[in-house]
Amino acid sequence: MNRQQIIEQIFSKKTFLCVGLDTDLRKIPQFLLKEEDPAFEFNKQIIDATAPYCMAYKPNLAFYESMGLKGIATFEKTINYLKENYPNHFIIADAKRGDIGNTSNMYAKSFFEDFGVHSLTIAPYMGEDSVKPFLAYQGKWVILLALTSNAGSADFQLTEDAHGERLFEKVLRKSTEWGDKNNMMYVVGATQGKMFEDIRKIVPDHFLLVPGVGAQGGSLQEVCKYGMTKECGLIVNSSRGIIYASQGEDFAQAAAEKAKALQQEMAIELEKI
Amino acid sequence: MNRQQIIEQIFSKKTFLCVGLDTDLRKIPQFLLKEEDPAFEFNKQIIDATAPYCMAYKPNLAFYESMGLKGIATFEKTINYLKENYPNHFIIADAKRGDIGNTSNMYAKSFFEDFGVHSLTIAPYMGEDSVKPFLAYQGKWVILLALTSNAGSADFQLTEDAHGERLFEKVLRKSTEWGDKNNMMYVVGATQGKMFEDIRKIVPDHFLLVPGVGAQGGSLQEVCKYGMTKECGLIVNSSRGIIYASQGEDFAQAAAEKAKALQQEMAIELEKI
Repeated sequence: MNRQQIIEQIFSKKTFLCVGLDTDLRKIPQFLLKEEDPAFEFNKQIIDATAPYCMAYKPNLAFYESMGLKGIATFEKTINYLKENYPNHFIIADAKRGDIGNTSNMYAKSFFEDFGVHSLTIAPYMGEDSVKPFLAYQGKWVILLALTSNAGSADFQLTEDAHGERLFEKVLRKSTEWGDKNNMMYVVGATQGKMFEDIRKIVPDHFLLVPGVGAQGGSLQEVCKYGMTKECGLIVNSSRGIIYASQGEDFAQAAAEKAKALQQEMAIELEKI
Repeated sequence: MNRQQIIEQIFSKKTFLCVGLDTDLRKIPQFLLKEEDPAFEFNKQIIDATAPYCMAYKPNLAFYESMGLKGIATFEKTINYLKENYPNHFIIADAKRGDIGNTSNMYAKSFFEDFGVHSLTIAPYMGEDSVKPFLAYQGKWVILLALTSNAGSADFQLTEDAHGERLFEKVLRKSTEWGDKNNMMYVVGATQGKMFEDIRKIVPDHFLLVPGVGAQGGSLQEVCKYGMTKECGLIVNSSRGIIYASQGEDFAQAAAEKAKALQQEMAIELEKI
């Protein structure tokens, strides 16, 4: 999926919402546990209910791996379900991978060729040769961690070098030498507020994947105020706040309502462009 | 497996070798492809042949994930085979995971409870709350990336802050506040030579997992000269240099010879302590 297609989705559907499929068997409605594949049944119903209000889905691999082999099968079935039924939705595998070149090649094959997702989150610590193998795939996206939404983001990402450049800024600047706005995005937490201004100085046009709205406390309006571009430039993720909106039979409907509420806020922000 | 048990293994077997099980169907002897699970058959024979000369095994998840569901099953079977047949060997899942606390919890459950490995490699970029969930497991180890063996390690890991502290040094220093020498190790590439001296100034007693001897060009003697401690303090990994020593029927024997050669060099280094 290319940049133009992503932008078209956003403006035609008036949404830049990504629904995070952090599916945890302890948190889904318990009546689903009688299903053969409860996690897939949950995902399927959440997807069908929320698809009109979002333009992307982001399953986090940790949740599927924690269910063992069956969980990986559920992940695969979910990706296939999305590709067959919602081919215009952007699919992000949130896996935060990254290894030496030889090994990153294997991850790239796995996610881009075998699972066939559109994009993958990548950790930058190991530098250029850990990221480049993913950029070799035409039409696929690297979403590099820059400034994350968690408290620990302050431990290393904000470290200033001798010239006053912070680590996340260096990650942004260096990585623009490896890819461009057509094959790279960056993770920037919604909790980072005004920092979006600093980020836009380095990557004015790149899309940012923004987790942390909702359960983690980030504000959509603040993210838009400081991070939005003429082409939107934002994909804002909400996971727990949407998918666990209700534990009852109405869970999918409740998720749809949460997604719709965010979509409506997003439509207002898009009109300001 | 606790620190004392690891040290006892090293000195009783006179080896601090870890064999990296980077099992790639394109690189294993092709006659194995007729087996029902070629990757497991390869691992089993490599393990049986090299076990006398090493004290640890390190499967890299990328190689198993790239084989899809079957690959994850192979990984699981390999771990179970090790635990049943070689219970004194230390098992490292080389997965380089790391996510926000909520999600790292899921990875910790997956690797430590379900797969039951002894240790997991972790990427530090997301800071404290991405690492701590793994440290909550008694008798398990976090092996944090510090200074990796690849060319890209220079991109961010060597960045000096305003006080002259490099990022990998900050990772070492900060993380000693989260865990200690009984539940943390660090990845330091064998290609880093004299840098081991700088690392030992910050973590004089911690074990270091050292990849990069062999195919990546690091020198065992140099690693020992600058990185060894009174309790050894090193686990040196070789993957491709051992497991792909031969493509013939003798592949396991050839791997054993490569492992034995390294073990003999290691015995000499251990005698110097």
